[in-house]
Amino acid sequence: MLDAEAALARAQARLGAVPAVAAEAVTRCARAGRLDVRALALAARETANPVVGLVQALTRLVAADTPEAAAYVHRGSTSQDILDTGAMLVADRTLRIARADLTRTAEALAVLAARHRDTVMAGRTLTLHAVPTTFGLKAAGWRQLVLDAEARLGRVHESLPVSLGGAAGTLAGYLEHARLDGVAGTGDGSYADRLVDAFAAETGLARPALPWHALRTPVADLAAALAFTAGALGKIAADVQSLARTEVGEVAEPGGGPAGRGGSSAMPHKRNPVLATLIRSAALQVPALAGALTQCLAAEDERSAGAWHAEWQLLRECLRLSGGAARTAAELAGGLDVRADRMRANLALTGAQIVSERLAAVLAPRIGRAEARRLLTEASAEAAAGGRELQAVLAENPLLDGHFTAAELAALCDPADYTGAAGPLVDRALWP
Amino acid sequence: MLDAEAALARAQARLGAVPAVAAEAVTRCARAGRLDVRALALAARETANPVVGLVQALTRLVAADTPEAAAYVHRGSTSQDILDTGAMLVADRTLRIARADLTRTAEALAVLAARHRDTVMAGRTLTLHAVPTTFGLKAAGWRQLVLDAEARLGRVHESLPVSLGGAAGTLAGYLEHARLDGVAGTGDGSYADRLVDAFAAETGLARPALPWHALRTPVADLAAALAFTAGALGKIAADVQSLARTEVGEVAEPGGGPAGRGGSSAMPHKRNPVLATLIRSAALQVPALAGALTQCLAAEDERSAGAWHAEWQLLRECLRLSGGAARTAAELAGGLDVRADRMRANLALTGAQIVSERLAAVLAPRIGRAEARRLLTEASAEAAAGGRELQAVLAENPLLDGHFTAAELAALCDPADYTGAAGPLVDRALWP
Amino acid sequence: MLDAEAALARAQARLGAVPAVAAEAVTRCARAGRLDVRALALAARETANPVVGLVQALTRLVAADTPEAAAYVHRGSTSQDILDTGAMLVADRTLRIARADLTRTAEALAVLAARHRDTVMAGRTLTLHAVPTTFGLKAAGWRQLVLDAEARLGRVHESLPVSLGGAAGTLAGYLEHARLDGVAGTGDGSYADRLVDAFAAETGLARPALPWHALRTPVADLAAALAFTAGALGKIAADVQSLARTEVGEVAEPGGGPAGRGGSSAMPHKRNPVLATLIRSAALQVPALAGALTQCLAAEDERSAGAWHAEWQLLRECLRLSGGAARTAAELAGGLDVRADRMRANLALTGAQIVSERLAAVLAPRIGRAEARRLLTEASAEAAAGGRELQAVLAENPLLDGHFTAAELAALCDPADYTGAAGPLVDRALWP
Amino acid sequence: MLDAEAALARAQARLGAVPAVAAEAVTRCARAGRLDVRALALAARETANPVVGLVQALTRLVAADTPEAAAYVHRGSTSQDILDTGAMLVADRTLRIARADLTRTAEALAVLAARHRDTVMAGRTLTLHAVPTTFGLKAAGWRQLVLDAEARLGRVHESLPVSLGGAAGTLAGYLEHARLDGVAGTGDGSYADRLVDAFAAETGLARPALPWHALRTPVADLAAALAFTAGALGKIAADVQSLARTEVGEVAEPGGGPAGRGGSSAMPHKRNPVLATLIRSAALQVPALAGALTQCLAAEDERSAGAWHAEWQLLRECLRLSGGAARTAAELAGGLDVRADRMRANLALTGAQIVSERLAAVLAPRIGRAEARRLLTEASAEAAAGGRELQAVLAENPLLDGHFTAAELAALCDPADYTGAAGPLVDRALWP
Repeated sequence: MLDAEAALARAQARLGAVPAVAAEAVTRCARAGRLDVRALALAARETANPVVGLVQALTRLVAADTPEAAAYVHRGSTSQDILDTGAMLVADRTLRIARADLTRTAEALAVLAARHRDTVMAGRTLTLHAVPTTFGLKAAGWRQLVLDAEARLGRVHESLPVSLGGAAGTLAGYLEHARLDGVAGTGDGSYADRLVDAFAAETGLARPALPWHALRTPVADLAAALAFTAGALGKIAADVQSLARTEVGEVAEPGGGPAGRGGSSAMPHKRNPVLATLIRSAALQVPALAGALTQCLAAEDERSAGAWHAEWQLLRECLRLSGGAARTAAELAGGLDVRADRMRANLALTGAQIVSERLAAVLAPRIGRAEARRLLTEASAEAAAGGRELQAVLAENPLLDGHFTAAELAALCDPADYTGAAGPLVDRALWP
Repeated sequence: MLDAEAALARAQARLGAVPAVAAEAVTRCARAGRLDVRALALAARETANPVVGLVQALTRLVAADTPEAAAYVHRGSTSQDILDTGAMLVADRTLRIARADLTRTAEALAVLAARHRDTVMAGRTLTLHAVPTTFGLKAAGWRQLVLDAEARLGRVHESLPVSLGGAAGTLAGYLEHARLDGVAGTGDGSYADRLVDAFAAETGLARPALPWHALRTPVADLAAALAFTAGALGKIAADVQSLARTEVGEVAEPGGGPAGRGGSSAMPHKRNPVLATLIRSAALQVPALAGALTQCLAAEDERSAGAWHAEWQLLRECLRLSGGAARTAAELAGGLDVRADRMRANLALTGAQIVSERLAAVLAPRIGRAEARRLLTEASAEAAAGGRELQAVLAENPLLDGHFTAAELAALCDPADYTGAAGPLVDRALWP
Repeated sequence: MLDAEAALARAQARLGAVPAVAAEAVTRCARAGRLDVRALALAARETANPVVGLVQALTRLVAADTPEAAAYVHRGSTSQDILDTGAMLVADRTLRIARADLTRTAEALAVLAARHRDTVMAGRTLTLHAVPTTFGLKAAGWRQLVLDAEARLGRVHESLPVSLGGAAGTLAGYLEHARLDGVAGTGDGSYADRLVDAFAAETGLARPALPWHALRTPVADLAAALAFTAGALGKIAADVQSLARTEVGEVAEPGGGPAGRGGSSAMPHKRNPVLATLIRSAALQVPALAGALTQCLAAEDERSAGAWHAEWQLLRECLRLSGGAARTAAELAGGLDVRADRMRANLALTGAQIVSERLAAVLAPRIGRAEARRLLTEASAEAAAGGRELQAVLAENPLLDGHFTAAELAALCDPADYTGAAGPLVDRALWP
Repeated sequence: MLDAEAALARAQARLGAVPAVAAEAVTRCARAGRLDVRALALAARETANPVVGLVQALTRLVAADTPEAAAYVHRGSTSQDILDTGAMLVADRTLRIARADLTRTAEALAVLAARHRDTVMAGRTLTLHAVPTTFGLKAAGWRQLVLDAEARLGRVHESLPVSLGGAAGTLAGYLEHARLDGVAGTGDGSYADRLVDAFAAETGLARPALPWHALRTPVADLAAALAFTAGALGKIAADVQSLARTEVGEVAEPGGGPAGRGGSSAMPHKRNPVLATLIRSAALQVPALAGALTQCLAAEDERSAGAWHAEWQLLRECLRLSGGAARTAAELAGGLDVRADRMRANLALTGAQIVSERLAAVLAPRIGRAEARRLLTEASAEAAAGGRELQAVLAENPLLDGHFTAAELAALCDPADYTGAAGPLVDRALWP
């Protein structure tokens, strides 16, 4: 908010509506370290926003620095211009970091996808082994989500606007002060136009289509992109947790082992998936917060009595949680321990059953579709009941006599030979 | 879903993996009117999705039509490919209608904004008169939100993808059947590539970057755009309701009066703002539903055991509510009754107080900032206490002697002369 | 709603404000099968609620049945009284079923808890084996949540109120008609009092503290209890899914196997946890819907223009999803396949590590706390590196010489001997 | 959390499992002021919870104070026992304050309801004047919601439980340490039982049915009650904002006027409804946060990897926002400025129309129901078109000749004579 006040003074100075020396004084004094933040918070309750108190405090500082500059603090302005522009500046800084973290995450996942392009593992649906897939394809999918998140944040980031509307969105206060000071262009609105441009230039933010005090597209867009980010990273976390389970053990989180990250003081053997836990925690929260932010679109009048105020904390938490999740995801992706041996061992648990879809397809033209299905169902049950391999049960089935050699049957039952287009899909995703 | 099955058969037929006559039979039989929907719904409980039963029913129909075609129904496919593609087709149809309704809404609002470019009304913040604005600027703001919604829906609409992944996202089933039938390109994945293209061509949907069974970007994007739409229209509804209040009376909804829309059987004088009510109702619901949809991004494994299923009803309601709100908004915007006389009359309620921001600015350089503020505060209190006009109280104040003529003071106090850049902002919004 | 209209007529007849024959005619005609529901739905758009059209249709039916009774349909009433009372009647019927399903679920879980009081399994925290627990304690915990849900639904169920307020919550319409008809007690409000009692008696619903058109406690309470129910059952579903994973295999859902429930057409070996999937799907949806319902508490005026309308669909879905989840949970609990052998086998995966907390406690007084921790950490690492059992590594450690016999060490390392108070906790939960 | 650690040590000391001197040392050292909170926050990232670092820091403090006591810090315990018990202690303190604020609010509203028992005002539905009501009835309704909120918070408050489960909910760690120290009752679970009782006694919290690490009833109940509170207060805020609008002016917030609360620096005439704004802001946020908390019920395993962690911040915000709203509501209710004259003046805006429901009822038996409705509709239209009073138009209508004297018609048209049971309803609500 202090940066917004300073940028506003400089923008007005560019157009001759504020003396340069005043803009410099405001810029010089607008430092958070010089304010009593607790006092501001308490005062904010009286006016339902923190800007009134902030302006008073800033004005006192400026008056002490350059007395004649004090009259130019917050000149023609309104609380919402400062608070909203401040929020966009905070978003800008957060998104810059979060997008870089997502880019790092995507790069690390690209390495994993390429390295494990042909690492076969069980594809799981509704918690059970379904058909084989590869860890490369899984990592490529994670990366795609991360790229999607980065793209959505990027789109919002580039259009974060300044807020400049004055008391009710007409910029009348800015124009009136400029008119009284003899600045040109106050009659036909061209001064307003140039002021928005100058404010955008000073803050590095974009120019909005219209003053947006009660047109909350920027906040709703931010909310949606941040919720997408947390949710998308939540998919990675859900998979990591699913694969890290003691019985599965196909991945482990980077870091310390007993003594380091994820260690448990009471249970020396544990290496908790704490990074995935932090990400999943964010994924559970941000979409709900963002939903509430989106509801704030329905703001009545030229400034809502509550819908605007509800945004502040929700937006801060969305930025914090999604930004934190992005940082955590970069750590997770950069150090994930992928255990191809456990993937192979787990595949063996279901044996030929994991390619039963293939066996059904292969048998159908030979013995009929219904018969093929019946045979596989019975053989699966027989294998399960006897604790045997489906492949072995099939090998003994007289109905299949003459259809396959043992080697052909073994090849058909090899999960590594039934990964479909997994490899080419990875290639296409990484090198489109 | 039936259209998805038919398109899949035709896509496979394009590539020689299904006989043309079979694709024609599937297309011919895939009609909702021929299915027992209730039976399908009951059967869906057994498999936690409706596709298994649908495929059985469709196969029976095809077998009765063209027996040799039955084997090609749902060939190599999986429930999720059909359900997700079907959902995208439903979304496609809904968005086509909803976007047209938004365009009509924006056009009607452009007419209102232009017509009322200079219709002065009270700008209201935190429920109270603040400074003047124009109804044109308000309508231009509404239109901007509608254009924003249309743009967001349009972006999603253009990229609604087919779903084609097979049992676990590798397309192995499709490839295996094609391989067994001697179709080319099953070894290097190029068949998979062409199949996705053909499926996209047959459905009119887009080609996804990767199979998206567990990468739910399309659904999350839809949710966000639909929530934005409902929320943005909710802003219009909130304003219409605020302005339609008996005491305010600045707008009224189109339609019937006592006998027609919004009429009350018990209270003949009422003309309820039912269109705004329907829209606001949607705006209260969709963001919460969309938040839950966004959480479904965190889907574990190659197909989630629940997060996928939770999407279906939420997405349907979002489409229905936001689509309905768009239709309702077009009616509302197209027939809104705007009462400039009531706007003027309401402005008179606060008299010169609504330009007190201006008076403070004008007085400050003449009698000092603090003194100006003190004078206005006292005069406002005196006016309120005596039930008098602030302008009259000011006219009697000796401190202002010699500063203004009566005519100058009257001009300063005229709300119509303090609308800032409202007019140019409307022009710029309508004719950028 | 038809039941509400009929009950209202009968209640008025009890007090002499409506002829008995008219109340009988209304009751006779108030049958859903006689209405054109689609026409009512279309007409509902015009008035933003379905009651206006419903009353017209019902009046036509009554007029055809008993002409002089027509004037007594909906006498003195208002849409909201009928819609809200109708909603409470629907809730009453749904809760009756859902509570019975929860009771059955709790009973089935009590059987599981008692049967598996001493069935040892891995306690898992943050996805990893932590210390041993029992399946009995897990089932007792599930049961506790089910009892909690039933108690919350029961509390709400018992207080579902009739809605009776007339046009703006003062019952003026009811009183005026009764006054004109010469009924006693219209001057002092005692008629209003008796009418509420009679309406409650006729519907079987409770008497509210005040007319609640804009005091939405009953709906918010329902929402909270239904969300709790879905969420609580979601815990069971999450555990079942976690334990049903191919690699874990400690439970399986009841039902069919390949040919029956949860079967997959393409993959004969699968037996998907479809019941848990349906429950989890509800658990992902209902809390968000209930959150939106709770927001509707903030209803303005004597009847909200939107917040009331937003409730209808949300409440219906909450009832449907939570009621469905309760039914599904009863099936799941009643037929869950618990595999103690797999629990034991999985425990063996972590061997003595799962009691490392105990080992640390036992060693600390003998060799010092820090030394004990160091020793266990190193031994765990050595065991992991060499693919050996922690117990074997410890047995060789000279630092432990003389502290334990082999048998003592084996006893200390037995997970079945380190289940804490699991058994007594089950006993206390089942037989408090 | 520090209070939880100290209470745990004292509880163990009560049972002889910890030396009294150690429990005293822990209690003495467990002071927030002695910890480096920022360092703890940073360390919390490594273990996904703040307790590990907290215990280390506390242990260091105890070791410095009483070296032999250090081994008894957090003895047999686990992070979740401390964090959850700490959260319940925070909830306990917050609810104590919030409930007192709600009680004060209800008392102030009772005064308003009694004082304005017969203050007639327009009842408004769908934003429009409907039929008359009284401000007393409105205030009694607000009070009822406040009492409902207090009752719900009270129910939760009384059952806030300690958390005591040890690593996986079996209390094994506590039992093992006690067993090694020769404490009685560790074999049959009775020690566990007594430890829970002692911990409850030391903290002042309740005893749970079972360890609730993954049975999140207490948190879900808190969430529901806090969301109810914010939503219920949101109703009051919505009404205050609706009635405070410049054109309505029937209430104003307490406090300062220009120089004080709600004052605007730029616009001296404004007295913003800031209290209602703060409350409404909370009402928009808490239900969404609470919805997310309720979803956390679906926590997998003995401790969730994320669902537990997601609760912390959401719960803190719910407590803060609902607690703040309760405090704000007490101020608002205690000082609300109610303007009976404006209520009367606004009623005059719709004149006899606001009793059109009554006129229709009175005319129906005299000239027929349909004819009465037609007459009133036409007369209303004529009055609106000519800017006349409906009563005057009716007085001239020949159809009504002989039915009423002028005085009778005037009495029928008096809103103050058509408030139904408003008065008795207030009496019954205040003095049941």
